[in-house]
Amino acid sequence: MLMDDMGWGDLGVFGEPSKETPNLDLMATQGMLFTNFYTANPLCSPSRAALLTGRLPVRNGFYTTNGHARNAYTPQEIVGGISEDEILLPELLKKKDYVSKIIGKWHLGHRTQYLPLNHGFDEWFGSPNCHFGPYNNSFRPNIPVYNNSLMKGRYFEEFGINVKTGESNLTQIYLKEGLDYISRQVTARQPFFLYWAPDATHAPVYASKRFLGKSKRGRYGDAVMELDHSIGQILSRLFSLGIDNNTMVFFSSDNGAAVMSGPLESGSNGPFLCGKETTFEGGMREPAIAWWPGRIPAGTVSAQLSSVMDFFTTSLAVAGLVPPDDRIIDGIDLSPVLFNNSLVNRPIFYYRGNQLMAVRVGQYKAHYWTWSNSLEEFNKGINFCPGQEVPGVTTHTQEEHTIQPIIFHLGQDPGERYPISVLSEEYRDVLRYVTAVVEQHQKDLMPGTPQLNMCDLAVMNWSPPGCEQLNKCLKGPESKPWKCDWPH
Amino acid sequence: MLMDDMGWGDLGVFGEPSKETPNLDLMATQGMLFTNFYTANPLCSPSRAALLTGRLPVRNGFYTTNGHARNAYTPQEIVGGISEDEILLPELLKKKDYVSKIIGKWHLGHRTQYLPLNHGFDEWFGSPNCHFGPYNNSFRPNIPVYNNSLMKGRYFEEFGINVKTGESNLTQIYLKEGLDYISRQVTARQPFFLYWAPDATHAPVYASKRFLGKSKRGRYGDAVMELDHSIGQILSRLFSLGIDNNTMVFFSSDNGAAVMSGPLESGSNGPFLCGKETTFEGGMREPAIAWWPGRIPAGTVSAQLSSVMDFFTTSLAVAGLVPPDDRIIDGIDLSPVLFNNSLVNRPIFYYRGNQLMAVRVGQYKAHYWTWSNSLEEFNKGINFCPGQEVPGVTTHTQEEHTIQPIIFHLGQDPGERYPISVLSEEYRDVLRYVTAVVEQHQKDLMPGTPQLNMCDLAVMNWSPPGCEQLNKCLKGPESKPWKCDWPH
Ligand SMILES: [Ca+2]
Ligand SMILES: [Ca+2]
Repeated sequence: MLMDDMGWGDLGVFGEPSKETPNLDLMATQGMLFTNFYTANPLCSPSRAALLTGRLPVRNGFYTTNGHARNAYTPQEIVGGISEDEILLPELLKKKDYVSKIIGKWHLGHRTQYLPLNHGFDEWFGSPNCHFGPYNNSFRPNIPVYNNSLMKGRYFEEFGINVKTGESNLTQIYLKEGLDYISRQVTARQPFFLYWAPDATHAPVYASKRFLGKSKRGRYGDAVMELDHSIGQILSRLFSLGIDNNTMVFFSSDNGAAVMSGPLESGSNGPFLCGKETTFEGGMREPAIAWWPGRIPAGTVSAQLSSVMDFFTTSLAVAGLVPPDDRIIDGIDLSPVLFNNSLVNRPIFYYRGNQLMAVRVGQYKAHYWTWSNSLEEFNKGINFCPGQEVPGVTTHTQEEHTIQPIIFHLGQDPGERYPISVLSEEYRDVLRYVTAVVEQHQKDLMPGTPQLNMCDLAVMNWSPPGCEQLNKCLKGPESKPWKCDWPH
Repeated sequence: MLMDDMGWGDLGVFGEPSKETPNLDLMATQGMLFTNFYTANPLCSPSRAALLTGRLPVRNGFYTTNGHARNAYTPQEIVGGISEDEILLPELLKKKDYVSKIIGKWHLGHRTQYLPLNHGFDEWFGSPNCHFGPYNNSFRPNIPVYNNSLMKGRYFEEFGINVKTGESNLTQIYLKEGLDYISRQVTARQPFFLYWAPDATHAPVYASKRFLGKSKRGRYGDAVMELDHSIGQILSRLFSLGIDNNTMVFFSSDNGAAVMSGPLESGSNGPFLCGKETTFEGGMREPAIAWWPGRIPAGTVSAQLSSVMDFFTTSLAVAGLVPPDDRIIDGIDLSPVLFNNSLVNRPIFYYRGNQLMAVRVGQYKAHYWTWSNSLEEFNKGINFCPGQEVPGVTTHTQEEHTIQPIIFHLGQDPGERYPISVLSEEYRDVLRYVTAVVEQHQKDLMPGTPQLNMCDLAVMNWSPPGCEQLNKCLKGPESKPWKCDWPH
C-alpha cells in the first residue's frame, strides 16, 4: 500500500496533532512501525521504479542527465519508461505462481510498452500518470484510466474530480477494486500480490463526499481520512477472509509531503526539514508499517534504516525467492528485522538525478551537495521549505561539499539544523567511515541508461489502447522530440 | 508530574522519531492523550504559578511591567514571589484532608515567605530555583536544595551535577522521594497530592550514570529516558499499592522545548513553530496525558483545548471541592472530558508579560502581537526559532497586529506558516468571533500586582534557613534593588 506525497508527519502515530488516522495507528499496534524508513528518491516515478525493481533510480534508469542533480518523472510528454532490461517484482513472483495486480498510479511510463501488463502485472485498474487536469483535450489530453490493457475513460470525464470542491470517488473505486481482487484470489486459493497505490493525497487532492469536510485538517486531511479508512477496510477483509496470518502487508509513501503546495493541498513532514523534491529528511523519510499478525510481533518499533527498495527483496524472500544475481540490488531482506527484531547495518543513499546528494550511516547524515531550488523559482513563489531555512543548508544554488560534507546527527537533530563542527573529533571519525561507505558504493556503481531525458508532445495520451471502443481517441501533433527541461 | 522545558515532540506518542519514551507512550494507551494542551506562559515560573493557582499569570501577578511583552521568571536576584493573596491548590485540598508534597523545582520565589511550606504544601524536597551553576559562592551562591523548610545542601556541592559529563543522580533522588511519599500515604490511608516536578530536561541537562549515553538523542535524550523510566516506576507503584483505580495522574511540561539551547541541551517541539520564550505553538503547546485506570477510558485521544490551569480546577472537582468564588479562575473542570470524552468550548490565551499576544478559538489562532526576540539578541546568536523563519510572523521587532491580526488555522497549518488571507470570508468570520472572545476576556481582566519587577543581589540564596546547621551560610552584599532587566 503505497501512498502518494503523504508525509512522515501525517499519521497520528508519527505525531500528526489531529490524530485522524485510527486505522493506520491500529495497524502499527498490530505490526511493526519503522521510524527510519526512506524512499529512494524524493519524487513519484523514480521512487516507484525503485520499489518494483529493488534498485536505485540511478541503476534502473529512472533519472535524467539533462541537467545536474535534477528531479525527473514521467509526465505525459515523456518518451521513456521502465526499461525492458529491468526485472520487476511481479515478474519474479510468477515463479511461485503468484498473480499480481496494481491498483492506482503506475508512473513508470505511459506508452504501451511501458504499461504494467507488459511488466509482470496480471491486472491493473488505474492510471499511468498523475491526475493533473482538467485539460481541454486539444493541446493536452486528459489522463486515461485503464482497466487492464484497455482505457476505460479519462480523469475529469468518466472519472470525475471536482477541482473546486475536491470531490471524487476515486479512492472508493480503488478500494472496491482492491477488496474484490483479494476476495477473488482467496476464493481461487491463489497466492497474490496487490500493489495498492491510490493518489488522493497528490495535488489536486480529493476525497469522496462522505469524507469531505470531516477532517480537522481541511481537504488534505479529508483525503488522508478516506485512505486511512480504506486501509482499515482492506485489513478487515484479510481478517474476515481468514488470511491475515498468511499475508504480509507493507504501508508507506512514495516521497515526502509536497509542502510547496500549501496547507490545503499537502501534508506534514513532522519535525523534518523541507519536503518533496529535496534530499533533506522531509523529502525522503517516510511513514512505514509492516503488518503480518502472528509473524511480525505486534506493537514493535524498529529503528532499522530501511527503504522502499527493501519491499522488493523482502517480498521475494517471503515468497521463497531470491533476487536476480546478474545485477546489483539495493533493497535488503528485512526478514531478520520483521521476524526477530534484529538490526542490520546498511547505509541510505539520497540521490537527485544521478548525483549522490547525501548518505546516512547510522545516526549520521553527510550532505555532499545541498540544494532546495533555484532562486529564480523561489522568487516566483515555489518554496520547497516553507517556514524553514537553515543557512548554508537549504541553499538556492547547488552547493558542493564533497571535500567537507555537512554532517548532522539525526538522532539529536532530526531537523538538520545544527551541523556538527568540522573541527570536532566526532566529525573526523564520522567522515572517515562515511567516506569508506561512499567509496564502496561508487566503486560498484554502473549507472543505467537514463530514461527520462526526452520529451515529445506526440507521445501524450492521445489514443490509448481501448480509445476506439469508447470513441475517445484524440489526434495529437507531429512528433517533435526535445530534451525535457527539469527545472529542479 | 510536570516536566521542565520538555517539548510536545519529545514523546514517542507525539512523533519523536527515536521513540524512546515507552512508559509515557504506555501511559497514553492506558489513559487520555491531549493533543491541544497548553501551558499558561512560555516560561517556567509563570507557568508553574498558573498551575497551582488556576489563574493566568497576568492575574496572579507572575509577570513584569518593566518592559512591554517581556518574559519574566524568578532568578536568584528576584525580590518577589507568589503573593499571599493567591490561593494555591494544596491550601484548598486541605479542606478535604489531603496532604501535599512538592518534589523538585518550585520557582515561585525563593525568599522564605514564598516557599512551598508557606503556601499549603506539607512537604518539599527540591529547590526554589533553576539548577544553574556552578557559582563561586562569592558573587553568586549556588542554589540550595531543601528538605521541607530547611536547606540540605547546594547544587554542585552536596547535590552534584557534572556539567561536563552531564552526570547527576538528582532524578533518582526525586524518584525515590516520590515513591517513599506515596507509600507512606497509602500506609497511613491518607489522601494525598504529589506535585512531582523534576528538572533534568532544563539546561544544564543531566542524567544518572545508568542512563548517560543510552539514548539515540544524546544527553537530552538520556534525561528524557530517565524521566520516562521514573514515571513508569511511579505508575507501577500505584498499581502495586492497589491505588491505581483511586488516583488521578496528570503529565505535562511547563513550556516548550528550549530550542535556543541547541540539540544537546534541548528537545523537540515536533511540527510546531519556535520554542520556549515565544507565544508560537512551539513555546506553549505541551505534551499532556491524564491517567486514571477504570475512570478515564484507556487509549483515548482528546482534542479538547486545555491548559495547565485546568489541573487546578479538575483536581478540586475530583476531590469534591469548588474553586474560590471571590476571583476569576481560568482553569476549567475537565471532568466531562476525562470521564465522558466530551468537548467543552473555551479559548486559549497566549501572554507575554501582561500583553495578550494571541488567542486560540477552535482551530483558529489570531496573533495580535508577534515577536521572537530582538535583532540585537538574535545577532548575538540567541535564536528562539532555529532553522525556522516565517516572514512577518517570527519577527525580531515587536509588531502590533491588533487591527488586523494574523490568523492561522492550526488544524490545516499547525506550523503557523500560512496566514489566512485577510481578504477571505473565512478571515472576516473568524475575526468577528475571535474579537468577541477577546473583548469578553479583557472586560473582566483585573491584572494582579506584578511580582517580577524588582531585583536585588542581597536577596539571593546566601543564607537559606538551615544553613547554620550545615555551616553553609554565606554573606551577601548590601541591599541595592533595581528594576530587573528582562530582555525578551
Ligand atoms: Ca508522489
Ligand atoms: Ca521550564
